[in-house]
Amino acid sequence: MEKIKIYLDHAATTPLAAEVLEAMLPYFSEKFGNASSLHEFGQEAREAVENARKKIAKLINAKPAEIIFTSGGTESDNLAIKGTAFKAKEGKIITSKIEHHAVLEPCHWLEKHGFKVSYINVDKYGLVDLAELEKAITKDTILVSVMHANNEIGTIEPIKEIGKICKQHGVYFHTDAVQSFGKLPIDVKKMNIDMLSVSAHKIYGPKGVGFLYVRQDVRIEPIMHGGGHEFGLRSGTENVVGIVGLAKAAELIHRNLEKETARERKLRDKLIKEILEIKDSRLNGHPELRLPNNCNFSFKGIEGEALLLRLSEKGIAASTGSACSTKSLKPSHVLTAIGLKPEEAHGSLRLTLGKDNTEEQIDYVLTVLSKIINSLRRISPF
Amino acid sequence: MEKIKIYLDHAATTPLAAEVLEAMLPYFSEKFGNASSLHEFGQEAREAVENARKKIAKLINAKPAEIIFTSGGTESDNLAIKGTAFKAKEGKIITSKIEHHAVLEPCHWLEKHGFKVSYINVDKYGLVDLAELEKAITKDTILVSVMHANNEIGTIEPIKEIGKICKQHGVYFHTDAVQSFGKLPIDVKKMNIDMLSVSAHKIYGPKGVGFLYVRQDVRIEPIMHGGGHEFGLRSGTENVVGIVGLAKAAELIHRNLEKETARERKLRDKLIKEILEIKDSRLNGHPELRLPNNCNFSFKGIEGEALLLRLSEKGIAASTGSACSTKSLKPSHVLTAIGLKPEEAHGSLRLTLGKDNTEEQIDYVLTVLSKIINSLRRISPF
Repeated sequence: MEKIKIYLDHAATTPLAAEVLEAMLPYFSEKFGNASSLHEFGQEAREAVENARKKIAKLINAKPAEIIFTSGGTESDNLAIKGTAFKAKEGKIITSKIEHHAVLEPCHWLEKHGFKVSYINVDKYGLVDLAELEKAITKDTILVSVMHANNEIGTIEPIKEIGKICKQHGVYFHTDAVQSFGKLPIDVKKMNIDMLSVSAHKIYGPKGVGFLYVRQDVRIEPIMHGGGHEFGLRSGTENVVGIVGLAKAAELIHRNLEKETARERKLRDKLIKEILEIKDSRLNGHPELRLPNNCNFSFKGIEGEALLLRLSEKGIAASTGSACSTKSLKPSHVLTAIGLKPEEAHGSLRLTLGKDNTEEQIDYVLTVLSKIINSLRRISPF
Repeated sequence: MEKIKIYLDHAATTPLAAEVLEAMLPYFSEKFGNASSLHEFGQEAREAVENARKKIAKLINAKPAEIIFTSGGTESDNLAIKGTAFKAKEGKIITSKIEHHAVLEPCHWLEKHGFKVSYINVDKYGLVDLAELEKAITKDTILVSVMHANNEIGTIEPIKEIGKICKQHGVYFHTDAVQSFGKLPIDVKKMNIDMLSVSAHKIYGPKGVGFLYVRQDVRIEPIMHGGGHEFGLRSGTENVVGIVGLAKAAELIHRNLEKETARERKLRDKLIKEILEIKDSRLNGHPELRLPNNCNFSFKGIEGEALLLRLSEKGIAASTGSACSTKSLKPSHVLTAIGLKPEEAHGSLRLTLGKDNTEEQIDYVLTVLSKIINSLRRISPF
């Protein structure tokens, strides 16, 4: 019998789609040129990069010259935030308490270098307090950065409204769309977005590549200086293979967006309905305004890591929260921000669905999970 | 008849080696986990990353924890230079006038942010003036950054001696080894190197990945903040596929280093000997202390771009200098630093050999080149 392997951690990363690999392969050893070289090898590479740029721009209603290729979500976030700060030289940044570390850490670092940062509260569902946000905007505010959807609890923020507020006050608005791109429709113009971060490996594309949308009139400094690639905003030889893969992955996921998210939403809703029938369980995040593939639970008296290990023994790959901070013993800053006590925050389970998950797998997970929780509770010291 | 395609631009980038792709393939869609995830998928990825780190460390006589994976050479250079500057908060950086833009541009940027930078002269061969360098070291000097080998003219700098000087003065020494790694042996301990930049795509590895060696006791700030990956020095989901490819490429090129560089040196010397027989031609760079695969020429009265186009028509891919600045109309800063007049600097031709170049190809290039030069000179306005 083949070993059961059920992957429910698509918020951490996704497998590369077969069609994406196929699109990438010619650029490894055949069309391998440096996109800045003048000869044929270089021109082939340049063409691939610019085609990718056009494809991606179209998907979010941007212009090709507004797409800056980076090494991924973390770099895109750092470029948006530090790029704005370095350009402005001083001022205040407003962000939320539940941002990804790739947003929070640049903010913490800038605080040490003379910038001011306000961290806005969220409600019990993780929704950013719009009134507090607007009130925080002062004359010296240079940037608001609020994520499109949260990576742990899946809550979708009212970014269109935040964008509108920023526009009214003449402040740049950046959103980390690493979790939402390919799951929620994005129109940077309609949503008043000045900068937007995306990563390829969350959408069945390769790791090590992403992009930052930077609206035409937005002025930022690069954080990586050198040969002046990417309109001077991101130096370094273009990762042609990665860029081709990113564009292909973006194209594929948008081709089937509505149908696939509806399918995942159905599976997610089944998970939520059944898991909430387990005694002393709670859903973290918003009941409706959440990513179609995300659910996040707490179980009273259950330690998250023990739960993950037991699930892993049964062939189920899940997460307690962000993969980026699994080594940390601190409870999730997202779960504490929505009001969970540290012991509740330690006991969370995040299940994030993907295109290859089936209803059969979900049924198996549900059976296994309730058994494990019962078993853990029998031996729990709480 | 198959179209002739002779690639002589290996300093710009190289095709991915078949064995490297083979090593990478399992990590795209099978072992695709996020190296920070606790489950099996994550652990497989973590193991791959740490094995790669060990392999690379061994090749340069470093410890695994001293290898920081980055998105490539430009990021490695930026991390070394800005990382040192941000940590020190103020002070002086010493570099040479012929560094890659990925070193010079961070230095220019830091000058705008309150740091001092000295740009040391080179002699007519491109060798850094050691006396001037030592004299430039003052009490507030925080870093010396001098490349191992120049990307345009191939000159090998006396980095062991520079490292020794830096050690004596208690100043960090960084070297950009993007062009030398895999061509010249490197021992970071024996060579007194504190930080060393490498890129995968120059050694038949993938684009978009590289590393920075950072000696254990060296303290720098990250330039990319987030989840705290890479010992806190480089946040962002590890590019597992890229890292596996980088390690495999590094392993392969070192397995055959002496034999292959001897082979390329022989072809290079043939090119040099024959091309110098063309009237009014000169070799740029050092006659002996140069990369085994690099030659760089100037031809009186010849415009570089015209020469490249003619070569391209004959199926030969070459370069006038760095691929990273081909769009620039300014003459090469390297060639002007070694004393060439702007018109001479515009007329340069860089040929950089690789593992697939044959003697037959070189003979063809020699025949074609002298014909082109004669033809161009007949129509030259100079």
